[in-house]
Amino acid sequence: MSEPLGVAVLGAGHMGADHVRRLARSVAGARVVAVADPDRARGEAAAAGIEGVRLHTDALAALAEPGVQAVLVASPDHAHEEALLAALARGLPVLCEKPLAADARAALRVVEAEAHGGRRLIQVGFMRRYDAEYRGLKTLLDSGGIGRPLMLHCRHRNVSSPPHFTSAMLISSSVSHEIDAARWLLGQEVTAVTVLGPRPSAGAPAGLRDPQLVLLETAGGALVDVEIFVNCGFGYEVTCEAVGERGSARIGAGPGMVVRSAGRAHQDITQDYVVRFADAYDREVRAWVAGVREGRVAGPSAWDGYAAAAVAEAGVRALAEGARVAVELAERPALYG
Amino acid sequence: MSEPLGVAVLGAGHMGADHVRRLARSVAGARVVAVADPDRARGEAAAAGIEGVRLHTDALAALAEPGVQAVLVASPDHAHEEALLAALARGLPVLCEKPLAADARAALRVVEAEAHGGRRLIQVGFMRRYDAEYRGLKTLLDSGGIGRPLMLHCRHRNVSSPPHFTSAMLISSSVSHEIDAARWLLGQEVTAVTVLGPRPSAGAPAGLRDPQLVLLETAGGALVDVEIFVNCGFGYEVTCEAVGERGSARIGAGPGMVVRSAGRAHQDITQDYVVRFADAYDREVRAWVAGVREGRVAGPSAWDGYAAAAVAEAGVRALAEGARVAVELAERPALYG
Amino acid sequence: MSEPLGVAVLGAGHMGADHVRRLARSVAGARVVAVADPDRARGEAAAAGIEGVRLHTDALAALAEPGVQAVLVASPDHAHEEALLAALARGLPVLCEKPLAADARAALRVVEAEAHGGRRLIQVGFMRRYDAEYRGLKTLLDSGGIGRPLMLHCRHRNVSSPPHFTSAMLISSSVSHEIDAARWLLGQEVTAVTVLGPRPSAGAPAGLRDPQLVLLETAGGALVDVEIFVNCGFGYEVTCEAVGERGSARIGAGPGMVVRSAGRAHQDITQDYVVRFADAYDREVRAWVAGVREGRVAGPSAWDGYAAAAVAEAGVRALAEGARVAVELAERPALYG
Amino acid sequence: MSEPLGVAVLGAGHMGADHVRRLARSVAGARVVAVADPDRARGEAAAAGIEGVRLHTDALAALAEPGVQAVLVASPDHAHEEALLAALARGLPVLCEKPLAADARAALRVVEAEAHGGRRLIQVGFMRRYDAEYRGLKTLLDSGGIGRPLMLHCRHRNVSSPPHFTSAMLISSSVSHEIDAARWLLGQEVTAVTVLGPRPSAGAPAGLRDPQLVLLETAGGALVDVEIFVNCGFGYEVTCEAVGERGSARIGAGPGMVVRSAGRAHQDITQDYVVRFADAYDREVRAWVAGVREGRVAGPSAWDGYAAAAVAEAGVRALAEGARVAVELAERPALYG
Repeated sequence: MSEPLGVAVLGAGHMGADHVRRLARSVAGARVVAVADPDRARGEAAAAGIEGVRLHTDALAALAEPGVQAVLVASPDHAHEEALLAALARGLPVLCEKPLAADARAALRVVEAEAHGGRRLIQVGFMRRYDAEYRGLKTLLDSGGIGRPLMLHCRHRNVSSPPHFTSAMLISSSVSHEIDAARWLLGQEVTAVTVLGPRPSAGAPAGLRDPQLVLLETAGGALVDVEIFVNCGFGYEVTCEAVGERGSARIGAGPGMVVRSAGRAHQDITQDYVVRFADAYDREVRAWVAGVREGRVAGPSAWDGYAAAAVAEAGVRALAEGARVAVELAERPALYG
Repeated sequence: MSEPLGVAVLGAGHMGADHVRRLARSVAGARVVAVADPDRARGEAAAAGIEGVRLHTDALAALAEPGVQAVLVASPDHAHEEALLAALARGLPVLCEKPLAADARAALRVVEAEAHGGRRLIQVGFMRRYDAEYRGLKTLLDSGGIGRPLMLHCRHRNVSSPPHFTSAMLISSSVSHEIDAARWLLGQEVTAVTVLGPRPSAGAPAGLRDPQLVLLETAGGALVDVEIFVNCGFGYEVTCEAVGERGSARIGAGPGMVVRSAGRAHQDITQDYVVRFADAYDREVRAWVAGVREGRVAGPSAWDGYAAAAVAEAGVRALAEGARVAVELAERPALYG
Repeated sequence: MSEPLGVAVLGAGHMGADHVRRLARSVAGARVVAVADPDRARGEAAAAGIEGVRLHTDALAALAEPGVQAVLVASPDHAHEEALLAALARGLPVLCEKPLAADARAALRVVEAEAHGGRRLIQVGFMRRYDAEYRGLKTLLDSGGIGRPLMLHCRHRNVSSPPHFTSAMLISSSVSHEIDAARWLLGQEVTAVTVLGPRPSAGAPAGLRDPQLVLLETAGGALVDVEIFVNCGFGYEVTCEAVGERGSARIGAGPGMVVRSAGRAHQDITQDYVVRFADAYDREVRAWVAGVREGRVAGPSAWDGYAAAAVAEAGVRALAEGARVAVELAERPALYG
Repeated sequence: MSEPLGVAVLGAGHMGADHVRRLARSVAGARVVAVADPDRARGEAAAAGIEGVRLHTDALAALAEPGVQAVLVASPDHAHEEALLAALARGLPVLCEKPLAADARAALRVVEAEAHGGRRLIQVGFMRRYDAEYRGLKTLLDSGGIGRPLMLHCRHRNVSSPPHFTSAMLISSSVSHEIDAARWLLGQEVTAVTVLGPRPSAGAPAGLRDPQLVLLETAGGALVDVEIFVNCGFGYEVTCEAVGERGSARIGAGPGMVVRSAGRAHQDITQDYVVRFADAYDREVRAWVAGVREGRVAGPSAWDGYAAAAVAEAGVRALAEGARVAVELAERPALYG
């Protein structure tokens, strides 16, 4: 394929606009041919200065645009299922921002539709799999360098949470990244979830159970603990320590520049995931475009999106019930073997 | 008091012999006047080269030796209670290696005996309170520098466990250090314990549930997770990260010398608690001797020893039952206010 | 400019082939229209699989190819001057791998030719200016955050040197990066050079004075020391500590993943500059393409290339003479103001 | 020797008073029997609360006090020679704070007097040799773990300098520690000194050449660079990186507690050498007392004190003359073989 890949971007909010810019300005081999957003002004803003983009307020109309060869879904969660089913119907490869769908049930319908088609078309935006440090950790675990992984200790901290963030969203929106990372790093499904937590921080909005400690058990007998703290105040931090039978490995805690002044040696802490994972997003979209141009879809699958959703739902129940909740997954279609 | 403090050391095993050497060689103001061990040869070996030491095979006879002004108990756990009660009866200050007694019930009897006497005479050997890093963390928490503490993430790893170490001893013998450290750092009693764990490591002896993740809840609403892994193979590591409402603080992970060679930058990991906490042991015994010479007993109290034992027992039950176990403490005597 | 920028790449060796791949595969807005290398097979290998590339064995013929709008010079050092003068004659923007020319005299002729044309067309490939850590350090220094910079302590280590590397090349080829970085970070010209060194390492080829300590004095009274060690054996390491009147800042020493096993905590050390500075190379070429498409040339200038060459030549003399050598720069043309 | 060692302390200033306290309170096996200071009130303050101490205003009278078995010299530099010669005459072991004497010539007279007596009695207070990190580095170098040492990169920073500190004292008083450390770590004499420096920091008192870069060449062909910066403002820092033929090793830069708050991860930097080297001072005096009680003197010798003084004097000349100055040492007496 010598022509650039024509991409329709659905959703022109923060994430969508960022992807439009990325595809147009920094990904070789791609061009944005259509942008859809119910808010026309927002679509226009995202596409400003990029030639040849057709604007739509209706996502399905954008998919029908001539020249659309692939789709990037960055619309609100509830709109994902319809967009994905439409893309599958047209045989278009899709990069879908997480979550795959609004809930595990909807996610499973997407999985079944793709499996029915018999061909991998969907990649889910779990971009940590493209982060250099996570990839290094995955390589180490797969090499057996520290023996069988026994535990993952994860920290996921945000400076502050957006308005309307709920206690359940700490799990379904934030910990879902760790759920996918754990499944991917360990190569195992999650079988049960328990949620504990201290008395909420005074720095969290009233009523928000923040922080929480989410405990995942896996099919292979590993244990994962995740501190999720979305109003920690001091920075955006994502760390992971894998403890194996013969060693441990920790990522995400490293300093960049160390400054010494006024009695202290300090490093700045990233304040935002956009900064921390900027390269991962770039690498993800570049790899997706390059793969699609060669007819391959190889990243996180619809099954990965479904499994993360199912675990997150069990986590939300564990939070509500104050008890361990087993995770029930549907049977895995052969396509995702 | 211008004369050196005369100390009887009960127990001449690994720990006892080390204390004999410490009191004789590196603590100003103390001298060892009696050593008791049922195994006379072991007592002789410990006292070799130190002038003026009387050897006994019976602990109570050692306490009665003229010149004994204080007692250091390093005998087996089951012998603690009798020795402590005898020392209390004689009004002798005691530094007692942890645990205070063989179980929480025995520990409570010791507490009651001391409280009945109306005077603090017992200090328990929780030497982490004398470690420079732990003291720094305590100072930071007390200053409010990171706000109210919400969580402690603790790691406690040993290269390998001694023979006959049981799954319950991971909690009662090893995690008991974190139980005391958590109570001391937070200034709160522990109210419940939950124990989880991955499938045991192949590096652990058959039947040993190693590693474990022990979760402590406290009266003030903090949550403490402890990874205890006594056959990790790679080193002796004790780390603690306190997460507060406005920041976090981590101790125990720092490098000393960083060596770069053959493609790697590395630091050696301490292989043994004797090395890691050598200074803490020295500081503990020096502070105890100095205090006793001035008529003060100020370190970890018999109540601290009892509380740690009670929490550890709840932990052992939580391990056995696979469920959260609430901790029931006796009423705290006024002496320990 | 909506069409991609047509680039001729001169030189298809290691560096040139890498840039061909970068322009074709990962830089949006560029395409390779010509590749020139005296060795046709090498040119073909570099261009394999990229559509629309015309191959040449003569650099000047490649410049004359229709569609060439910019030039990337990655040919051997001695070929730079002719290529640069030809590109200037055609008004083509150039990204020229360091050094600007084979020696300071040739570099000055290039500077004069560009100044004569009255328009910045040349950017030199000092890619450290595009490295995230160096940029962070530059920002800190410019902000006055650590006061006036007094000293830079630099370490530049390679696993091993290529065959035929000479003692002078440690300065002219390797330290030239630090020369540019020091000039850029401090915003000052270098005024004198002294070179010292220990007895050469047994790990260096016979006759090579490796390592060396190169000392640079600057017009503003700063002092820069550079350890250059091209056969250190253990890794590729580039670190820089700036010491200012109120603080210091160190880059390049940070860990990524920390692995604990077998008694050691270790991080891998990068073995190669291609890995360490991969992102800097990408950022450099992307910024150059984006700028040229908008009619701007803003990176390291021909003057920077000349000044680095002049300082390096003084360094080589200081090495040979065993004494401090003052640096004499030509007058700076107004174009580089 | 079962009785505690009777020590006379000469000088009751900051350092002397600290040693009085150390000998009396934290060194087993020693007691202070005499304190001498021309200022009687200062001597009284230092000895307050310690039983059995005789106060003198004359150092030689203190040496004559019955019960004096060893001497600790902490008087002003110019008083060292007389005190040392008197102690040698009486056959008393001495621990002498650095420098050995007021200048290299006086130091040599002390060396000759001790050599004439044929018996090691003097130990110089180069306490870094007792610091755990320095000892670890020495062990590594001696083991050949990083091959032959080629370079030492040293940093020595103080928050601020005391009044009346001169440019020469940066070398003779401060760098003298690195001079001894380099001689000890490398096991080589220093053969030449060069001193360079940036324009002095605005944070230094007017006229003080601060910071400086002091370069030492050694008999075995190693090169040592020392940044001495006594008004760095941000902390007391002593680091040393040894670069060998097969690796490097760095001490002194390690974090203790890492605190994360307000966008930064930081560690406190020690503000004072008393804190940084507290354990080294303790270890030094304890080892000296233990050795003397067994009839051994084994630490840094009078020769070490003389050599450091000679190198420092060459350094001060190099600073004044702006050129490399060769170091001339007297012949080493057989006693120091």
